[in-house]
Amino acid sequence: MKTFEKLINIQKINNSRLCISLDPQIEKLPKIFPRTLNGILYFNQKIIDKTKDYVCAYKLNFAFYEQYGSKGIEILEKTLELIPKTLVTIADGKRADIGNTSKAYAKSIFEHFRFDCATLNPYLGIDSLRPFFEYEDKLNFVLVCTSNPGASDFQKLLIKDKYLFEEVLEKFSNNFPIENLGFVVGATNESEFAKVRGFAPNNFILVPGIGAQGGNLEAILRANNHKNLIINVGRDIIYASSEDDFEEKVREKTLDYWQFLKIERL
Amino acid sequence: MKTFEKLINIQKINNSRLCISLDPQIEKLPKIFPRTLNGILYFNQKIIDKTKDYVCAYKLNFAFYEQYGSKGIEILEKTLELIPKTLVTIADGKRADIGNTSKAYAKSIFEHFRFDCATLNPYLGIDSLRPFFEYEDKLNFVLVCTSNPGASDFQKLLIKDKYLFEEVLEKFSNNFPIENLGFVVGATNESEFAKVRGFAPNNFILVPGIGAQGGNLEAILRANNHKNLIINVGRDIIYASSEDDFEEKVREKTLDYWQFLKIERL
Repeated sequence: MKTFEKLINIQKINNSRLCISLDPQIEKLPKIFPRTLNGILYFNQKIIDKTKDYVCAYKLNFAFYEQYGSKGIEILEKTLELIPKTLVTIADGKRADIGNTSKAYAKSIFEHFRFDCATLNPYLGIDSLRPFFEYEDKLNFVLVCTSNPGASDFQKLLIKDKYLFEEVLEKFSNNFPIENLGFVVGATNESEFAKVRGFAPNNFILVPGIGAQGGNLEAILRANNHKNLIINVGRDIIYASSEDDFEEKVREKTLDYWQFLKIERL
Repeated sequence: MKTFEKLINIQKINNSRLCISLDPQIEKLPKIFPRTLNGILYFNQKIIDKTKDYVCAYKLNFAFYEQYGSKGIEILEKTLELIPKTLVTIADGKRADIGNTSKAYAKSIFEHFRFDCATLNPYLGIDSLRPFFEYEDKLNFVLVCTSNPGASDFQKLLIKDKYLFEEVLEKFSNNFPIENLGFVVGATNESEFAKVRGFAPNNFILVPGIGAQGGNLEAILRANNHKNLIINVGRDIIYASSEDDFEEKVREKTLDYWQFLKIERL
């Protein structure tokens, strides 16, 4: 099954547009876990156990595993084995390279780790990312507008009458089908989100930046107008408590977001 | 010692501006090596042995190791141990992420793997890459103009009277000192290289795209005008032969480039 369909299915089954990012840091682990790499694996396992019926996807950022070297990447491999196959997995690497190297990254993400989706950085141009799109059953999310203050440094520069991020949106839309192409728009960019949704009504949009980063969920949902959407929440859920009530609090926070992000509510 | 000084020193000692990229692929290994991950390690070891007196740096792209998962990253770790400490190591990851995640990538590259340099993608803006620049003894190369045809999709869009890549160049120059900031300019962009060199006379420029990618080395050297430069060669050296004469041919090709890239010649 194509990831695009898998995503639509699981959003219906779990009645959820919620994605949780599993981005662990040893020094932030709640005290019930040992502060070791295995502690990270248990931490991820607990989160998956407590949340898997209320999410459509998990997003794993390579950085948080790579910081512990090959042993950290092993934890990434083991975490992926714990995620039920009905759920969608997103490799958040924001990859960008050219030709041969992009091919190796695509092979890494889709063949070795067997992720369903990847996040990609557009700066190197359309051809640079083509190797990812050659996996026709996968879904790639191209960065359009990020949630950090520096997003305006380049993404919001004006090229004639359009912003750079709009150029990115249009060029990628013109080159790749909706089933393989999604966009990343940080939740702090409400008006940019509306522009992207207007231009690309049927592509999936992945929205990080909710919770710890301060994005406005209500405004995004209004602008989205019931279209294909994934809302990612990270720290606000996975670090819901550092105490003995960790599992309970993770579940509670997840249910709060789930209520908000139900498909049928929207 | 700061990487900036280390680089100037080793360029003098080895009389070389040549960097070799160690980007191995199992299916391309010369027949004298087993087609296994250990085969990759032996391959890298042979190349390092035969070339270490004629280069200033080795560049390792994460993609080529990550495609083999945690076991591949282990080969990356072992390869780094084989590189003499006098030589400079460049983590070619073209990393870009925000806040917390950039911090984890910087920790990965500079603390876990202990690379001297990183390559970075500017699309997310100045603040997104700040965590890398907080390692004040390290040198970061920001992508300005890449060597692929799609480089023109975004990098060469006009913003008022300047190209996007010039905006990148200027904004990063205004924010970070020469000792910590280098630029990547693909060798196929001769006129763009001249612009970058004109604007940033003292920063290191890392130039990939020579050899297999068809960049013009003579033109780059002329435009460079004896300034801080690293020329990277990959496939043309590491796959110089797939036969029994592999070591000999790697040495020969390296010497050819070395002759061309001597400091004193320039």
